[in-house]
Amino acid sequence: MNWFEQCIKDNSVIKPGNIIKVDSFLNHQLDIAILDRLAQEFYEYFKKKPITKILTIEASGIALSCSVARLFQVPVLFAKKAVSLNIDPQTYQSTVYSFTKKVTSQVVVAKQYLDASDQILIIDDFLAEGAALGGLIDLVNQANATVVGIGIAIEKGFQKGGSLIRQQGYDLKSLAIIDNLDAQQIHFRNEVSS
Amino acid sequence: MNWFEQCIKDNSVIKPGNIIKVDSFLNHQLDIAILDRLAQEFYEYFKKKPITKILTIEASGIALSCSVARLFQVPVLFAKKAVSLNIDPQTYQSTVYSFTKKVTSQVVVAKQYLDASDQILIIDDFLAEGAALGGLIDLVNQANATVVGIGIAIEKGFQKGGSLIRQQGYDLKSLAIIDNLDAQQIHFRNEVSS
Repeated sequence: MNWFEQCIKDNSVIKPGNIIKVDSFLNHQLDIAILDRLAQEFYEYFKKKPITKILTIEASGIALSCSVARLFQVPVLFAKKAVSLNIDPQTYQSTVYSFTKKVTSQVVVAKQYLDASDQILIIDDFLAEGAALGGLIDLVNQANATVVGIGIAIEKGFQKGGSLIRQQGYDLKSLAIIDNLDAQQIHFRNEVSS
Repeated sequence: MNWFEQCIKDNSVIKPGNIIKVDSFLNHQLDIAILDRLAQEFYEYFKKKPITKILTIEASGIALSCSVARLFQVPVLFAKKAVSLNIDPQTYQSTVYSFTKKVTSQVVVAKQYLDASDQILIIDDFLAEGAALGGLIDLVNQANATVVGIGIAIEKGFQKGGSLIRQQGYDLKSLAIIDNLDAQQIHFRNEVSS
């Protein structure tokens, strides 16, 4: 078990419905030292790519993205969520269904901050069904920009998002992959690789 | 004009209704170097206070808060917004009216991350009517914690939030105060002080 898997094991709460809460350091309270250490791992993995911008989605992807962006010396762009939205011709918009909240949201970025020259590293805290990630990839495609990599802190390997994204050929790096939450125990995938 | 006022002048768009958009570096795209420089100013101002935690509100307060928290070596806690919410006895909740979005939201933090021993520095990107800030102060008070300071990147000095907060005796540091947006020009308050 690596340091981050141990950190998850020590600091998470498992809830009914395959929910794992990591509120103490990743998505409510934020432990900056942990985020910076995760960012360093993403940097080591993706540093040879010509990344121009980090793309994430509000709210819990923002903090980790800032730590990553500092190392690459590039800006973060965070997609905004709106339950309903007028069509604004100055934005790219995609639709995302949240399986946890059971609502459909629009995710939006301003066109002026994403264009065909951009080499995008997408960062997010969690990957489960892959709905949010699919929306972000769609936004990048609308801009004719390129997704050069995807960095996820915690992938729920028992949900389909990760395998779908890998089948599509994306360079996906998850720093911890949980294969199941059986009987209140967290089981990590032995080898975490893209 | 200091560097940050110049940065606002160079990188903002003024919209009808006294709206100033700083999407290029502060609340959609994020310029980490600018955020870190703002954080350094907050650190210099508040460094003698025994701060235990940074409190902010999703989404656009998170990035700046992370930069500040790194300097103080304390965690960030970000309040979550929900349009409607069941009463959860494990959370503190307050109600915030957004003047820009014209909706009332609940802002929520888990009780386990805020207690009477906490010395809180509140950080946010904007202060206008002070509604969000009022909600955050209310959450701190519910926990019997202490607000030891409030750091704001851009205060709209022509709206009432800043003066209300100062009247209540809070140590409020705004790094730029816009006194008016008359005729598409930004006029800063001459002396930015608490």
